[in-house]
Amino acid sequence: MAKARHSLKDVARRAEVSAATVSRFLNGSLDLPETTRTRIERAVRDLDYHPNPHARRLSLGRSDTIALVIPDIANPFFARLAAAMESHAAQHGKMMTLQATMNRSDRELAALEIAATNLVDGLVFMTNHMPPPEVAQRINRFSRAVLVDEDVRGARMPRLLCDNEMGGFLAGDLLYRNGHRRIAYIGGRADLLSTGARLNGLSRGMMGIAPVRSYGDDHATASGRDLARRFLDERQDETAIFVGSDELTIGVLEVFRARDIRIPDEISIVSFDDVRSLHLMTPAITAVAQPVETIGRRAVEILLKGDWDDSAFGTTTELLPVTLTERGSVRFIGQ
Amino acid sequence: MAKARHSLKDVARRAEVSAATVSRFLNGSLDLPETTRTRIERAVRDLDYHPNPHARRLSLGRSDTIALVIPDIANPFFARLAAAMESHAAQHGKMMTLQATMNRSDRELAALEIAATNLVDGLVFMTNHMPPPEVAQRINRFSRAVLVDEDVRGARMPRLLCDNEMGGFLAGDLLYRNGHRRIAYIGGRADLLSTGARLNGLSRGMMGIAPVRSYGDDHATASGRDLARRFLDERQDETAIFVGSDELTIGVLEVFRARDIRIPDEISIVSFDDVRSLHLMTPAITAVAQPVETIGRRAVEILLKGDWDDSAFGTTTELLPVTLTERGSVRFIGQ
Repeated sequence: MAKARHSLKDVARRAEVSAATVSRFLNGSLDLPETTRTRIERAVRDLDYHPNPHARRLSLGRSDTIALVIPDIANPFFARLAAAMESHAAQHGKMMTLQATMNRSDRELAALEIAATNLVDGLVFMTNHMPPPEVAQRINRFSRAVLVDEDVRGARMPRLLCDNEMGGFLAGDLLYRNGHRRIAYIGGRADLLSTGARLNGLSRGMMGIAPVRSYGDDHATASGRDLARRFLDERQDETAIFVGSDELTIGVLEVFRARDIRIPDEISIVSFDDVRSLHLMTPAITAVAQPVETIGRRAVEILLKGDWDDSAFGTTTELLPVTLTERGSVRFIGQ
Repeated sequence: MAKARHSLKDVARRAEVSAATVSRFLNGSLDLPETTRTRIERAVRDLDYHPNPHARRLSLGRSDTIALVIPDIANPFFARLAAAMESHAAQHGKMMTLQATMNRSDRELAALEIAATNLVDGLVFMTNHMPPPEVAQRINRFSRAVLVDEDVRGARMPRLLCDNEMGGFLAGDLLYRNGHRRIAYIGGRADLLSTGARLNGLSRGMMGIAPVRSYGDDHATASGRDLARRFLDERQDETAIFVGSDELTIGVLEVFRARDIRIPDEISIVSFDDVRSLHLMTPAITAVAQPVETIGRRAVEILLKGDWDDSAFGTTTELLPVTLTERGSVRFIGQ
């Protein structure tokens, strides 16, 4: 795609309507007042705008597709979120195509390029690292996109996040009420919005007591194993850990089991996500759950029914509440 | 797409070369001997073949995409398989787009339509039900497709399956050697290739002793709960169950835990897939594992390097070996 070419979005901006309005007007599926029509037609002429040749697919109803870009399909949190979106997309007669980026910027850019070429109705973008500015620029070329789960700096699109701070708070509050004062935090990468928000909430729940140690890496089982080993090597008197994702928790549990460290007798643990059959483990693991179903539903609703004509819509953030499920992995050690 | 129009595949068949050869020749990226060129040019003329207008994307290197169609993203077996394919596709410089069908024929057809419109380099198709003939017909229109995990009747494409019969055999053999003679089978839908193959292998491993009872339904946690309740209600003296997927096993374990039925004291259990952290449960659950990494790698290799010029290639089946991991869920009850 040549850079100099003007996009549908440029036409929309100049005509002071939404890109969807321009698109529907140009493919003949939308009647508009005379003044709006004139504005759009003039913008098309002024910018020498030529609709993308693939655009006919859209007007023929062949697209009806939402593009979902996620970091990692094998992570059950993303997999379940994708399934929830799929089911809500289906209820709106939409298909969904998914691309996994393995958290690599080159693949994020390629995935966005493919989604753009296939002229999807909307984009749901999720990442687990801090992508370079090019990614935000590509996202901004879509007429409708939602950033889910994590921030992308520079993207002018609505955000849909779980309340990470509240999740950290619920974990910290539970640990504090059970007498824990010296704890560790094993979370995601330090430059992520979610990592910091969970840590802030954790300290707030602990009445201002920050973790003795904090560890951060990818939300992956292998990282969980590595960080658990480092934690055990460096551990002094910490009585509990808050782990920022089930993926990390699985790795932590594997190391604890291998070293015969008993939960909650020797150490208490609270996980985050609650998508990994934690209820069937012994002990069952206490965890903060994200509202996966609701995130999936809201992402689709925002794309299809959001107020895209409002230019401030791209700066909104919607926070969804999380819940704590107490099981058997936190020990009471006094007030 | 008008039905009467001839496809790239028709041209290839008439010219007696592969569709990829025609495609690369037509976009100028392949030099061919004079006789082959003449054959292709004549076939194009005879069939009045007009390349798909989207085809330029392919010749511009914009496609480089493999389409993956799976029944259920939330099922970790499919999610991990998708991740494995993603990583191998990346090694070949390919992107992958995934669509989940929720095992519905209408969505399978829509997913195939989208993949066809986006002119992917190849298709990997997985289903968990027996789709109607239209699905096979659509699959056959692709120049390169691989059926993974389960059969699609009528599709003339290579199959890549795990050795389900061997998996059943390993489970049956283990149970038999541990003295179990009266067992039950909780598997997938009865009309699936995999369900029958696992059952056959199970009986062979049990020295010809068929399960006292067989239950079948979707590979889903909710189905596992339902079938476990039915099994417990109808149970007489069965000492073990073989469960055809981890998804079903999770449901079974939930019901057993709720009714306080102890594994392996009261009943032994062997699962199939081994993707659900069974090693962290108490007791750790013995399971047959599919070679998820290898399936992912081979699917990509077959698409990109298979002998697609050989017309018999579409009838080949590749069986990948499975392995049994013994843990703590099978009790020895005598010879």
